Amino acid sequence: MRAEILAVGTELLMGQIANTNAQYLSQRLAEIGVGVYHHTVVGDNFERAVQALQTAKDRGANVVILTGGLGPTEDDLTREVVASFVGRSLNLSNEIVEYIRSFYTYRGLEMPQNNKQQAMVIEGAEVLHNPRGTAPGMYLEQDGVHYFLLPGPPTEMRPMYEEQVQAILKRVQGAAALVFASRFLRIFGLGESAMEEQIRDIIQNQSNPTVAPYASEGEVKIRLTASAPTEAEAHALILPLETAIRERIGRFIYGIDDESLEVKAGQLLQAAGQTFATAESCTGGLIGKMITDLPGSSAYFNGGVVSYHNEVKQRVLGVEEAVLKAHGAVSAECAVQMADGAKRVLGTDWAVSVTGIAGPGGGSEEKPVGLVYIAVSGPGGTTVNQHQWKHGDRTQIRLRAAKTALYSLIQRLQNER
Amino acid sequence: MRAEILAVGTELLMGQIANTNAQYLSQRLAEIGVGVYHHTVVGDNFERAVQALQTAKDRGANVVILTGGLGPTEDDLTREVVASFVGRSLNLSNEIVEYIRSFYTYRGLEMPQNNKQQAMVIEGAEVLHNPRGTAPGMYLEQDGVHYFLLPGPPTEMRPMYEEQVQAILKRVQGAAALVFASRFLRIFGLGESAMEEQIRDIIQNQSNPTVAPYASEGEVKIRLTASAPTEAEAHALILPLETAIRERIGRFIYGIDDESLEVKAGQLLQAAGQTFATAESCTGGLIGKMITDLPGSSAYFNGGVVSYHNEVKQRVLGVEEAVLKAHGAVSAECAVQMADGAKRVLGTDWAVSVTGIAGPGGGSEEKPVGLVYIAVSGPGGTTVNQHQWKHGDRTQIRLRAAKTALYSLIQRLQNER
Repeated sequence: MRAEILAVGTELLMGQIANTNAQYLSQRLAEIGVGVYHHTVVGDNFERAVQALQTAKDRGANVVILTGGLGPTEDDLTREVVASFVGRSLNLSNEIVEYIRSFYTYRGLEMPQNNKQQAMVIEGAEVLHNPRGTAPGMYLEQDGVHYFLLPGPPTEMRPMYEEQVQAILKRVQGAAALVFASRFLRIFGLGESAMEEQIRDIIQNQSNPTVAPYASEGEVKIRLTASAPTEAEAHALILPLETAIRERIGRFIYGIDDESLEVKAGQLLQAAGQTFATAESCTGGLIGKMITDLPGSSAYFNGGVVSYHNEVKQRVLGVEEAVLKAHGAVSAECAVQMADGAKRVLGTDWAVSVTGIAGPGGGSEEKPVGLVYIAVSGPGGTTVNQHQWKHGDRTQIRLRAAKTALYSLIQRLQNER
Repeated sequence: MRAEILAVGTELLMGQIANTNAQYLSQRLAEIGVGVYHHTVVGDNFERAVQALQTAKDRGANVVILTGGLGPTEDDLTREVVASFVGRSLNLSNEIVEYIRSFYTYRGLEMPQNNKQQAMVIEGAEVLHNPRGTAPGMYLEQDGVHYFLLPGPPTEMRPMYEEQVQAILKRVQGAAALVFASRFLRIFGLGESAMEEQIRDIIQNQSNPTVAPYASEGEVKIRLTASAPTEAEAHALILPLETAIRERIGRFIYGIDDESLEVKAGQLLQAAGQTFATAESCTGGLIGKMITDLPGSSAYFNGGVVSYHNEVKQRVLGVEEAVLKAHGAVSAECAVQMADGAKRVLGTDWAVSVTGIAGPGGGSEEKPVGLVYIAVSGPGGTTVNQHQWKHGDRTQIRLRAAKTALYSLIQRLQNER
């Protein structure tokens, strides 16, 4: 199969949003062995969108995945574009009208009249339901080309792909389908190029499994993907490669697959029957946000204090004025008292604290931007580490600090269990 | 001018990296009035890349910006592709060989032999120097089409665009150059389709300015973009349209351009010389994170309490046990005491609180997932609102709750100043 991903939306051509859908779909399609040959973006323009479909067909695509342009406004042309291109009619689906109406009724609102546009279905198309929004997707086949019309917002598109599109693609692949199995190794504390240097001979010339590193703010993931007639065979191909990689860099591998830092920390806390709390200064609530992104985190997360001002560090966390005077808020001493204070005030077994200078302002010769202290207070005492990130903007420094705090907690939990 | 951005790289089609170059270039080109009509991505494949150039030319592009494929490896084909397409030769530039050699010498290394490939220049092309890497860029014109060959790494491509490409484009535009001006109107509390229904007759058939709505989690932005020979004239075209829109839906417009909810709240607090704090339950620190994403937020944000557990609501914020027993943590009464408590404990003028059920678990018939109470405590007293979001997952409910909390604070600040 030969796929082209066609995004429709003037906002992409204006650079207002990035085409993250193309990246996401490319990753997913690679996993099931569908080759992506082109990405295209066109604006909300009928003629140019039809022309783009013709171009995709002319250059041999037999899977065309369109994203965007399914909304309720006059700009949203994807339904009309595809219907016109394949020469089929658009028909109003009363079932979808009722679904959209119920979407509004639940919210105590009346359905705006123009939302009916979203209930127009291309003749003979399979409707892809969208429980997260009002725009349903569609699937149709004509002249050997498989068309998928998916909504633009990633929060709607991604689950629709996972829950409905992937199954159709596998059905279309039929007997030729290989099963793909992947394993992610999650690494912290080792940069991408240092990692690559250590395992270069292992990954060189690998074609099955393929080995791909992904780096993001201090974290590196290695994806091992193998294809075989059965899932068991695919996994069997991955295992020796994983073992070889672990022999080299195993101490940096903290988790696999979906075990992010916050998931791993939660697993370890739950296994120990312990709780934790946060005391955040420069991260301003980011660690708490990451932890509580996970449903069920209340089993081990009591809460936290965002002590952005020194007054809050003193009043709520009990940091001593003498410490702030002698060492300042960005200091190992303050980080220790913040963590100890959070543990005490929130009544938990563990607490992590972060205090630092995220920039762009606030730095000095002595305490430059990127200087961050992270403390972990636990049953076995309080530890603190100094970090100095020389590169990166405010967002990057804050994210690295939050991730490092979680990683520090994980290390303590693993060492003291 | 009619531009197409053509990225060359199999790693893009595999989804290993996102095509951020296309977004960046689109933003820059929009600023100088160069219309981008298509983005395309092809792999490291000679025939398909040549074909993509032909497609771009066929559909009328007179500016083609290629990114990627200028490296030293055999995969890097962009030079050969363009030379072949325009029918010109590639010649070794000794000057560039020497530059690349010095790049290595400076680092105490010897130049790998394959780096010479990067010194091949298309006959008649202008070389674009690359002080941040070894791959120079190129600019050439043939048959009225302007080709730019830029390196793939954003850290090399972006400065090359800013320092060299933009000046060439402006030179090419010459007297025909139009200036584009944009204004964003930021809307809260009015859905995209309801908004469009109210202003459809205003935006219908608009071509200059163009009007485009964008929706994201409870927020809607309207972009007004006008082009004219001067910036003042472009702005003058926008003004009457903005006025007409404000007459219809002005009460939902809380800010313009970059004034996000957190920016607007910060502006109003600073103007009033007041401070605020947060008390977050189901949002778990998200509001604090959003506020402190902004540098300088310490001028008005003292901090907050993430009171995920009821014990923390009682111990740190002083929520009464009787309130929790009678009404539960997800109640108007608890939200009020949380906000009042945060204001008192953190010593601020204002505090916002959020308590609700973000799901997927934890809901009941009486208190379903999506039920959220938001209170604002301020100099003029404490107000509380109940929200019931029937759709959306945990992430969406949390984000809507955080944005609604900020919007509630903005409304109070605006009404009481």
